[in-house]
Amino acid sequence: MSVTQEHDQNQPWTWAEETWREKLLKARAGRCLKPASWKNGARMAVAVSFDSDHETFELRNGGISISRLSQGQYGARRGTPRILALLEKYCVPASFFMPAVSAMINPEEVKAVIAGGHELGMHSWIHEFNSRLDHATERDLAFRAADMLEKISGVRPVGMRTASWDFSPYTLGIAREMRLLYDSSLMADDEPYELLEDGQPTGIVEIPVEWIRDDAPYVAMDRMAGARPYGGPAMVLDILQRELEHAWEEGGLFQVTLHPHHVGHRSRIFILEEIIRLAQSKGSVWFCTHAELAQYCAQECGLVTAAPAA
Amino acid sequence: MSVTQEHDQNQPWTWAEETWREKLLKARAGRCLKPASWKNGARMAVAVSFDSDHETFELRNGGISISRLSQGQYGARRGTPRILALLEKYCVPASFFMPAVSAMINPEEVKAVIAGGHELGMHSWIHEFNSRLDHATERDLAFRAADMLEKISGVRPVGMRTASWDFSPYTLGIAREMRLLYDSSLMADDEPYELLEDGQPTGIVEIPVEWIRDDAPYVAMDRMAGARPYGGPAMVLDILQRELEHAWEEGGLFQVTLHPHHVGHRSRIFILEEIIRLAQSKGSVWFCTHAELAQYCAQECGLVTAAPAA
Amino acid sequence: MSVTQEHDQNQPWTWAEETWREKLLKARAGRCLKPASWKNGARMAVAVSFDSDHETFELRNGGISISRLSQGQYGARRGTPRILALLEKYCVPASFFMPAVSAMINPEEVKAVIAGGHELGMHSWIHEFNSRLDHATERDLAFRAADMLEKISGVRPVGMRTASWDFSPYTLGIAREMRLLYDSSLMADDEPYELLEDGQPTGIVEIPVEWIRDDAPYVAMDRMAGARPYGGPAMVLDILQRELEHAWEEGGLFQVTLHPHHVGHRSRIFILEEIIRLAQSKGSVWFCTHAELAQYCAQECGLVTAAPAA
Amino acid sequence: MSVTQEHDQNQPWTWAEETWREKLLKARAGRCLKPASWKNGARMAVAVSFDSDHETFELRNGGISISRLSQGQYGARRGTPRILALLEKYCVPASFFMPAVSAMINPEEVKAVIAGGHELGMHSWIHEFNSRLDHATERDLAFRAADMLEKISGVRPVGMRTASWDFSPYTLGIAREMRLLYDSSLMADDEPYELLEDGQPTGIVEIPVEWIRDDAPYVAMDRMAGARPYGGPAMVLDILQRELEHAWEEGGLFQVTLHPHHVGHRSRIFILEEIIRLAQSKGSVWFCTHAELAQYCAQECGLVTAAPAA
Repeated sequence: MSVTQEHDQNQPWTWAEETWREKLLKARAGRCLKPASWKNGARMAVAVSFDSDHETFELRNGGISISRLSQGQYGARRGTPRILALLEKYCVPASFFMPAVSAMINPEEVKAVIAGGHELGMHSWIHEFNSRLDHATERDLAFRAADMLEKISGVRPVGMRTASWDFSPYTLGIAREMRLLYDSSLMADDEPYELLEDGQPTGIVEIPVEWIRDDAPYVAMDRMAGARPYGGPAMVLDILQRELEHAWEEGGLFQVTLHPHHVGHRSRIFILEEIIRLAQSKGSVWFCTHAELAQYCAQECGLVTAAPAA
Repeated sequence: MSVTQEHDQNQPWTWAEETWREKLLKARAGRCLKPASWKNGARMAVAVSFDSDHETFELRNGGISISRLSQGQYGARRGTPRILALLEKYCVPASFFMPAVSAMINPEEVKAVIAGGHELGMHSWIHEFNSRLDHATERDLAFRAADMLEKISGVRPVGMRTASWDFSPYTLGIAREMRLLYDSSLMADDEPYELLEDGQPTGIVEIPVEWIRDDAPYVAMDRMAGARPYGGPAMVLDILQRELEHAWEEGGLFQVTLHPHHVGHRSRIFILEEIIRLAQSKGSVWFCTHAELAQYCAQECGLVTAAPAA
Repeated sequence: MSVTQEHDQNQPWTWAEETWREKLLKARAGRCLKPASWKNGARMAVAVSFDSDHETFELRNGGISISRLSQGQYGARRGTPRILALLEKYCVPASFFMPAVSAMINPEEVKAVIAGGHELGMHSWIHEFNSRLDHATERDLAFRAADMLEKISGVRPVGMRTASWDFSPYTLGIAREMRLLYDSSLMADDEPYELLEDGQPTGIVEIPVEWIRDDAPYVAMDRMAGARPYGGPAMVLDILQRELEHAWEEGGLFQVTLHPHHVGHRSRIFILEEIIRLAQSKGSVWFCTHAELAQYCAQECGLVTAAPAA
Repeated sequence: MSVTQEHDQNQPWTWAEETWREKLLKARAGRCLKPASWKNGARMAVAVSFDSDHETFELRNGGISISRLSQGQYGARRGTPRILALLEKYCVPASFFMPAVSAMINPEEVKAVIAGGHELGMHSWIHEFNSRLDHATERDLAFRAADMLEKISGVRPVGMRTASWDFSPYTLGIAREMRLLYDSSLMADDEPYELLEDGQPTGIVEIPVEWIRDDAPYVAMDRMAGARPYGGPAMVLDILQRELEHAWEEGGLFQVTLHPHHVGHRSRIFILEEIIRLAQSKGSVWFCTHAELAQYCAQECGLVTAAPAA
């Protein structure tokens, strides 16, 4: 067989059906876990989350740009305090996902998050891309990250979010081995669902995210790469409001992912406040952490999870 | 002759006239097939289409990102059902173009499309780029795709749309060999036209598309590549409304290409609804599938097609 | 001397002053050629131009994408006719810059442009980048392009616009050798100015352009490269209106560069109409071709040009 | 040890804690230098700055594009005069940061800046990226740039801004050796702060900037690279107004970075005017240069700087 033929046989259009089916089934949406009704009969659930990457979004690239490291420090120094103050003002619980290194740099943020009644979730070791790791490395970093968050916060995390939503072929197996309650990195639905591994139920709840409901794609700036602020904050708010309004119409879940070093800026913090105000104006809304949401959905839908009892 | 000279002679500015003329004539717009009047005397024709790529938009790149595969699954799980419900609510027929692999993954979507009275059209095997294939491979994939769609749906497709509108030098010949009624991948007009091959009429109807009337360029997101959501949904709607209003003024065709995994999201589905409502508010409008449109234009303009009678 | 040292001495920060001064002076803005008053005492001059690249914007890249070639054909088939109709409706003269190959493909457009009383200007041979050519090649293509335009249109062009505004170190010398009246590719001012070559006056009028007043940066789409439509047509109009309003305030020139295959689309043609209407609403406005403008400025400012008398 | 293992050990996720801590501490935000009240009891401080890069933004890339050089010349020829006229009209002092080469090309701009009562600050030699230089080269260029600005303006600069905010591991040490009063390149806060080097106080004031409050990310255009105007000027103004309004609410500093060759255009200059008008409408505002701001913050917060007395 020639080199060219060999090359051709690696092309997607030459794959046998089992090849692409196997890829599809690695980690796939199973049954929907939207409960018959939300907690206390609320019409809508609202799960607000923050990825406290701070300095790690540059460290993971080598930590070369001092300017970008300072943008990360802004997140911890100005962004998170503004966010925590808003959450307190409106009595909204939220989930903070932190890379272990970010927690080590900013242990006082970890303490403030816990003290505020919020959830602390896993978010990789140093914001590394999982798909660049072998199984042993990804597994080792995941366990060490959980241990470190527990050590600093005093609470064992029950859920994870992969950095950059880079979910590798090993990630689901590791989450199962860690007996996590939920993951929040995938995008196959608006409502929570059970993750399937190779077609089999796993007992892991997926709380789906979407780039649509993430501030970074709209506002991240990287001078040396091509990322730019493509839309103003008014556009970002408009999109989130539309997502929220439609979730309300469907009686479903509204989930959002924000970053202290993005939304925590003076010209953007109103986005968070307006979203909270819009949700609260609806009346019948359950604000919950991701852990509470996963726990409730699992319970209402009779999902047997491997997670230790809360 | 030196290497440099040889290199120079391959540059476009060194080409002889026949070189660029040959490129131009490969597949080019011939006579306009806009009929004297639309069906039932309607002032405007509206042809709505959906490219149901779903998981294949990532599989065609190797199927490496589980996150992107989940975005594709969203299209089938949430996007298409929302779209089909809207089309039913407003009694609008549409055309769904599906890669064969997407149809194999989502056969129930194929059935729902057919059951709803919509058209199922070809859209490659696994969303491969045609221009990366040799003639035999492109031809083989095209025939297998048509067979697979027919096998799952029970209906032989009469039209095709190339994936990513990547129309190769072989595509038109293959479409002729398949005796297709129409293609919908090129952009030389607002109105249907006859395709010429090497300057000769082919009897194939082209239903022109444009990136302007496609949701993907505005909202597609690829973390690892540079694609970002550049404009909000309000901007997308504004552009489509302007295209539609001007089609109305001209008494012409308004054609649009949407994707279930893009427009099917909660914050974007209103774009489709508003477009339908605007068109219906005009009164004298013919909503048609691409196949009905091509058939009607061919008939009214006396085009002899090679397609089997419907 | 080591390789590293040699490399370092080629870096801009190691240059001697004469090195960067020489680069600066290659083609630089000299004295301003804004006349004391515009023709017939008008307060503002408006010079509208169209770059009729059509198929050449893809041919110059190798002519590989049939889809992009069809977008170019749209420009000639739908875009230019819409534009010419609008110009006629509002009695506005304009300048059309055409690559020679575009004129060869679309000779009827050339004739319609001339018949409409508009100007035909040079715009390269096949939309090649000048900075990739040696002197002899650029010179040869320029002379052949002028000859070809004259042959098709019957009129010798008196001005040029480089393709993609890629003005090489040889371009100005070639323009002088051709005894051109003006160039329209550079951006050092809002008002016409005299070009200096190596610090010396050339008698060539520069009618400055800007990407700000060009439709392409906002709406061009290239699936395989990264170009996307970043802002909607309402944003483009807003920017042009602001440029025009400020030109009115200053009693200056408003110049704009549009493309039939961009602005000629149904959802964008209103941009041209609104700009014309806004200008005409001011009352005291001189609409002129680029050639008329250059001729008038040269005459009023006592510039001795090498161009043959009109 | 294999090559692969060695490679792996250079990855961020394999770093020992001291490795990333050392990177973090190179130049980091220390104590906040926001004074108890602004000068004369003003509620808000407003520090407007302009980076007069002009031709150097292209020279630093090799000075190949004559078109881009002409865009730079526009900055000096049209942009700065418009800006200086506005600043005079509203009696607003500002800081102009100029690469030494830009000052050499445009000495009359230097004189007009000084004559207008504005500050002239350092901004590299030829807009080079610091992170591509070794220590000796960066140091040499910095000292030569300061000498050149002093020679042309008659005033020794007391502050610096790195080009493209590319702050190298050597930059802070060089600033200390130069006994500068302040730097304005980093982003860890909204308010001035003291810079720490390896965890130790330096006596250098940082006046933080942000890409959010910079015109370039929104409007810069580079035909050959991917930069495009992503948002219109109305979006830019909206963002700056939100930053300013929130600064007012907090009684803090509003700092902004603009470029004559960007904001100086006819369609953008209103952004500067509207920002000044909004600030002045607040009443209790202290408009200051960056040097005055740094001096005041240092004095009010008891910071011992190494800078010579003004």
